[in-house]
Amino acid sequence: MFEYMTVRELYEMMLTGSDMEIDSLEYVQLEGWIRTNRSNGKLGFIELNDGTYFRNCQLVYKSDLSNFEEVSKYSTGSAISVTGKLKATPDGKQPYEIEVTESKLVGDCDSSYPLQKKRHSFEYMREIAHLRPRANTFYAIFRLRSVLSMAIHEFFQNQGFVYVHTPIITGNDAEGAGETFTVTTREDADYDKDFFGKHAALTVSGQLHVEAFALAFRDVYTFGPTFRAENSNTSRHASEFWMIEPEIAFADLDDDMDLIEDMVKFCIDYVLENASEEMNFFNTMIDKTAIERITKVRDSDFKRMTYTEAVEHLQNADVEFEYPVEWGTDLQSEHERYICEKVIDGPVFLTDYPKDIKAFYMRINDDGKTVAATDLLVPSVGELVGGSQREERYDVLKARMDEMGVEEEGLQWYMDLRRYGGCKHAGFGLGFDRFLMYLTGMQNIRDVQPYARTPRNLHF
Amino acid sequence: MFEYMTVRELYEMMLTGSDMEIDSLEYVQLEGWIRTNRSNGKLGFIELNDGTYFRNCQLVYKSDLSNFEEVSKYSTGSAISVTGKLKATPDGKQPYEIEVTESKLVGDCDSSYPLQKKRHSFEYMREIAHLRPRANTFYAIFRLRSVLSMAIHEFFQNQGFVYVHTPIITGNDAEGAGETFTVTTREDADYDKDFFGKHAALTVSGQLHVEAFALAFRDVYTFGPTFRAENSNTSRHASEFWMIEPEIAFADLDDDMDLIEDMVKFCIDYVLENASEEMNFFNTMIDKTAIERITKVRDSDFKRMTYTEAVEHLQNADVEFEYPVEWGTDLQSEHERYICEKVIDGPVFLTDYPKDIKAFYMRINDDGKTVAATDLLVPSVGELVGGSQREERYDVLKARMDEMGVEEEGLQWYMDLRRYGGCKHAGFGLGFDRFLMYLTGMQNIRDVQPYARTPRNLHF
Repeated sequence: MFEYMTVRELYEMMLTGSDMEIDSLEYVQLEGWIRTNRSNGKLGFIELNDGTYFRNCQLVYKSDLSNFEEVSKYSTGSAISVTGKLKATPDGKQPYEIEVTESKLVGDCDSSYPLQKKRHSFEYMREIAHLRPRANTFYAIFRLRSVLSMAIHEFFQNQGFVYVHTPIITGNDAEGAGETFTVTTREDADYDKDFFGKHAALTVSGQLHVEAFALAFRDVYTFGPTFRAENSNTSRHASEFWMIEPEIAFADLDDDMDLIEDMVKFCIDYVLENASEEMNFFNTMIDKTAIERITKVRDSDFKRMTYTEAVEHLQNADVEFEYPVEWGTDLQSEHERYICEKVIDGPVFLTDYPKDIKAFYMRINDDGKTVAATDLLVPSVGELVGGSQREERYDVLKARMDEMGVEEEGLQWYMDLRRYGGCKHAGFGLGFDRFLMYLTGMQNIRDVQPYARTPRNLHF
Repeated sequence: MFEYMTVRELYEMMLTGSDMEIDSLEYVQLEGWIRTNRSNGKLGFIELNDGTYFRNCQLVYKSDLSNFEEVSKYSTGSAISVTGKLKATPDGKQPYEIEVTESKLVGDCDSSYPLQKKRHSFEYMREIAHLRPRANTFYAIFRLRSVLSMAIHEFFQNQGFVYVHTPIITGNDAEGAGETFTVTTREDADYDKDFFGKHAALTVSGQLHVEAFALAFRDVYTFGPTFRAENSNTSRHASEFWMIEPEIAFADLDDDMDLIEDMVKFCIDYVLENASEEMNFFNTMIDKTAIERITKVRDSDFKRMTYTEAVEHLQNADVEFEYPVEWGTDLQSEHERYICEKVIDGPVFLTDYPKDIKAFYMRINDDGKTVAATDLLVPSVGELVGGSQREERYDVLKARMDEMGVEEEGLQWYMDLRRYGGCKHAGFGLGFDRFLMYLTGMQNIRDVQPYARTPRNLHF
């Protein structure tokens, strides 16, 4: 029997197919790209990857092949189409190999190809963003990115959450999450005459918009791009990144934390199951603790601790922190890591932060000083998720906006949600790219995004 | 037994649960929003919707309820929490009702609430975008939007396609798909000093960027927002809309059309199965042909016809067209509809369009005059999907870019994909919002988007 197959199909058949199925398949046809090609003049080996599976398929070609000389000269990166005899190799590194009977060059690869066999730095790879998905690390990252995206959608859709495409272009600059990019069709900044008749910006968060949908559908989520025009060149900041922002009605901060915990565990399980080859690669090549680290999180009960308790722990700690700790100030990464790594030794939700360091929409607690907010801290990175219960009391929200100088103009619709059947509701934000970094141990956000956008960097 | 439930869970149990299961459940607690409330002083009825299900849950309350008077006055739109006795009503319009034993007002609804019982025009509803998801039509649309999104992801992921987040901010203005929005942090249009050190724009398509990923992963897709700064106020144009752009390697135009056909059929099946309440609503209230129309498409073999043949049909047609038909010009909607409605009576792929009316990246056919492009036409709307095989020959691509005045600067990386293991590949673009309009019969793109962005319209 002769069949056109992908490398993934071949692996799946060789690893799980019946003997009869395997025996019935004599010849296969494959198409793909050459990762390596070496020949000693009598015998040659090609590692072929066709994009469908993390591992390569080994092709063997012998001097009786009619175009042996030509095949020996195929260069790394070339696209080829081959037919060959399938041979099980139960004692080999791979469960099978293909003995080539016909081979055709589909697309040659120029000798200037930057991805020759030797390793390149991640910095260099950023300069060839159009080619780097073909290199192992990025090949693994970008498939994992896809698998993790699907994990997010399955997690929420399985529970009936409604996916909402909140707008990218927004007229609200009030969300207070940092500097924004202006969107315009003019060169003179005369926004009254601009496309939208007013100043427009790229969204920093879909939360305010999605709250309106939670008050219709109960459980909703966004998953889309968000933007920051911050001129910071750190390894964790990008100007464009994807965020997941669920919002749940008839729910308080405890429900919110339950949802965060369930989501994180579901996603870890999902990638371990659906991207096992890729996760093994990261565990071997990038971060030898990756799988152990995330498996431990999956199997933990996430603890809960108030900000106030955390501050006490930090003040009593026998450690020199770079930044001082005082009730009322934001915790730094070193503090967050101390709490989850030294105090808890596992994931922990910090709750009830001082209102003055948090956003205007978070619900004021009965003490009048703190808000029903939470950050999920995890060992080795610190904050992974931030959430809060939202202020559902119109008067309290209005007073808070006045106090913080948030303009009501343009947000009256948001405030009105509290006048028309408002109820307790809560939500959180998960930075998708940082979650991917966390799962893989990758250290730079530029290396988990297909085409990263950072200050003065827009080459593709 | 007492249980906290959602309306969806209740319906599912009443429609598919066992008698024993139903009998064991005596009291349920529900939370939700009041759609209507009427009482005659002795007996009252509340239609409750909790966001989880298209249909409402009927609550009955009687004068022996301790706060009967208060409950009678609950206004439309209020959020309440109720406990009640579950009663099967096999002869009623609904399979059950709830006899209220306790009721609590969670969030009052002000008398200025715009969504009182009477109907409002869609135009008016656009002015209350934050509240309209609570009205039947939009409640149906936005859940369907979520279900259709999941259909797209399942269709591609089930076949191993890799989801790629192509960038929103781009430096390439060369894609030629209309006017773009500038992204800037300056007010003086001095782009050399701007955030990215050059002019930046909102993407009009992820295709060029995703092609690079197809040449690593074989089968990939994008699903994200795209933008047009066109000052057109039609019912089919929005400044921001979501697009799906798959790209497949080792594939030609025929493979591309097979993929389009499979996707359209899968999505139709998926929404009929997973949003049947909503689809029935559209079929009753918006477009009485909706289900028949899309079911017919699902069950059709999509035909294929060249542009040249189509032009002949049109020129021989016994119809007065508004726009003349001549080989070499773009077909108008009236022409497209004539072909699929009168000539074919079903979906049809037109192929091989004149190169001069198509984009630079489409593959030149052997005749030198046409390109391997296709538009899928469907009855009642015309074009639904546009795709093409891409020019994989470096020299031909370069000549074509020169001929069309497409600047190579900034696109060298794209051209280089043809030098480094390039192979035949193809892809298409599906406008997600228009697909949603097609499935539901909704006539204005503003009414299928959570917060539509159009010229001078950025109120939320």
